Amino acid sequence: MGPTGLPFDDIRALVAQLPGPDQEAAMAAREREARLVKPEGSLGRLEDIAEWVACWQGKAEPAVTRPVVTIFAGSHGIAAHGVSAYPPEVNRQMVETFAAGGAAINQICAAGDLGLKVFDLALDMPSGDITKEPALEEKDCAATIAYGMEAVAGGSDLLCIGEMGIGNTTAAAALCAGLFGGAGADWVGRGTGVGDDGLKRKADAVDAALAVHAGHLDDPLEALRRLGGREFAAIIGAILAARYQRVPVILDGFPVTAAAAVLHRLNETALDHCLLGHLSAEAGHARLADKLGKAPLLSLGMRLGEGTGAALAAGIVKAAVATHTGMATFEAAGVSGKA
Amino acid sequence: MGPTGLPFDDIRALVAQLPGPDQEAAMAAREREARLVKPEGSLGRLEDIAEWVACWQGKAEPAVTRPVVTIFAGSHGIAAHGVSAYPPEVNRQMVETFAAGGAAINQICAAGDLGLKVFDLALDMPSGDITKEPALEEKDCAATIAYGMEAVAGGSDLLCIGEMGIGNTTAAAALCAGLFGGAGADWVGRGTGVGDDGLKRKADAVDAALAVHAGHLDDPLEALRRLGGREFAAIIGAILAARYQRVPVILDGFPVTAAAAVLHRLNETALDHCLLGHLSAEAGHARLADKLGKAPLLSLGMRLGEGTGAALAAGIVKAAVATHTGMATFEAAGVSGKA
Repeated sequence: MGPTGLPFDDIRALVAQLPGPDQEAAMAAREREARLVKPEGSLGRLEDIAEWVACWQGKAEPAVTRPVVTIFAGSHGIAAHGVSAYPPEVNRQMVETFAAGGAAINQICAAGDLGLKVFDLALDMPSGDITKEPALEEKDCAATIAYGMEAVAGGSDLLCIGEMGIGNTTAAAALCAGLFGGAGADWVGRGTGVGDDGLKRKADAVDAALAVHAGHLDDPLEALRRLGGREFAAIIGAILAARYQRVPVILDGFPVTAAAAVLHRLNETALDHCLLGHLSAEAGHARLADKLGKAPLLSLGMRLGEGTGAALAAGIVKAAVATHTGMATFEAAGVSGKA
Repeated sequence: MGPTGLPFDDIRALVAQLPGPDQEAAMAAREREARLVKPEGSLGRLEDIAEWVACWQGKAEPAVTRPVVTIFAGSHGIAAHGVSAYPPEVNRQMVETFAAGGAAINQICAAGDLGLKVFDLALDMPSGDITKEPALEEKDCAATIAYGMEAVAGGSDLLCIGEMGIGNTTAAAALCAGLFGGAGADWVGRGTGVGDDGLKRKADAVDAALAVHAGHLDDPLEALRRLGGREFAAIIGAILAARYQRVPVILDGFPVTAAAAVLHRLNETALDHCLLGHLSAEAGHARLADKLGKAPLLSLGMRLGEGTGAALAAGIVKAAVATHTGMATFEAAGVSGKA
């Protein structure tokens, strides 16, 4: 598991010194955008996205030629409480399905020409049962954050972050409640498809976890290690590494966004290089998006995870960059301007 | 201009005898969908889209391997009334820009691996000024509908329909008012970017056209020839031909949807093989989508036309079909079902 023993102090230092946007690149992109052969503003969010990619890649001419989807897969002690419609062995089986190319995300990556990397986060060692104990020890949590930083190690210019983990929408709900307040019922949803009884068990589990960890949740990293789990920690590492390596990020659904929220609570600008790809049908996601001030790019009623929503949004981001860099200017095309 | 002289009676006969959905293909798609390795319903609209493609292609295993974007470009007499931010010579210049690969749609097609066909609809002969006379003679209108049927002649399995025509959001607004009622102010928007004065001129032009053609608008095809223009007629032909040749259709923004609405008024099921790709920022589009009972797939604040919104939506449709046909089943993947 990559470099070990990075304590939270190092993470805090990284979060405090985040590189900012490249304003020169943003200005160059804005100037080019205004000369392209189309009415001003007529490409809507595509124009904002092109400028956003330019400013977070730090390039006047943005490019998306090596987009990658990463799936962080974790195993959860909380799954023993009947909070998921599926049994915990599905974690391992789905990681094998990703490797065999049979999952939804494999098809979306192939259709959209996106790379795919899967991180198996000690699937055979579930995190602690958060209704009784912290999910992770600080050392394990910090090491997993460091491991998540490997997500951009191979070189990428757009990172889509996804997850897989039976029970992790319950952990995500607990983490959201820990970070933003509210009870279990405010944050849980049906996940992979639990019925009313399962939904009640999820809310009860979150409330039990909040009671056990009360008084220790003011520090977002402490909330992460107590209420989250390995994929949540790794996602934070991936987002941080992407920021430092100037790779724009697309966040997927509820668990990914909940992990990202830890960084937002540590530093309100920490997610400025992140776009929310898709509004999940999972109940808590809209509320969480609102807390983060992020408007999702797509809203297709999906709730699968695996990075599927982020990967679909990557197609829009690629198109935004392609129009920005590939279109002719009014001058070059010999097209008349406004009458 | 292709076959000529197809009178409205032939169009009416085509619209009255539309082939319906292939229910066997739809059922086969639903059965397969239920066995795929994901929680039921977790791919949201992607699941509906896969079944929709199957049923309108008439194939239990849908496929999108030859998607095409068509742009119908027309020239409008109404443009003389100062209803657009751009001069009419932009029509010809943009058609040349499409051919040279410099427009927004060229980049989106290249990024998404979509074919592109441009139909120049007698650009040097503007349609009649609808504030004074019909846009088209019946013979010319019918011939243009027939010409539009060429859109699927080369063979395609997904048709994205776009348009280009200075002044055509004013014609679209007039057509919507003619089909659904309301005054100019209810249907006009800023198009390529007119100011308040231009917006007033658009509303006034629509009101003038409605007054001139009053008493002749109950028949949707008569409304089309009086208030529309060549690209509107050709779009209708393309939608009809796609239906008969079992090619699902993605509609682009306001002018395309306004043309489609003519068919909807003739036969409420006529657009069942059409999906609305993107909700335009043009004011009348949301109202029109509502009249047609269509929920747009994307909402990115775009208002460019050229088929750009439909082409972006094609990426989602391709992904929907790819997941449906490419994913493993629970059984094949050896993944446990619900607990």
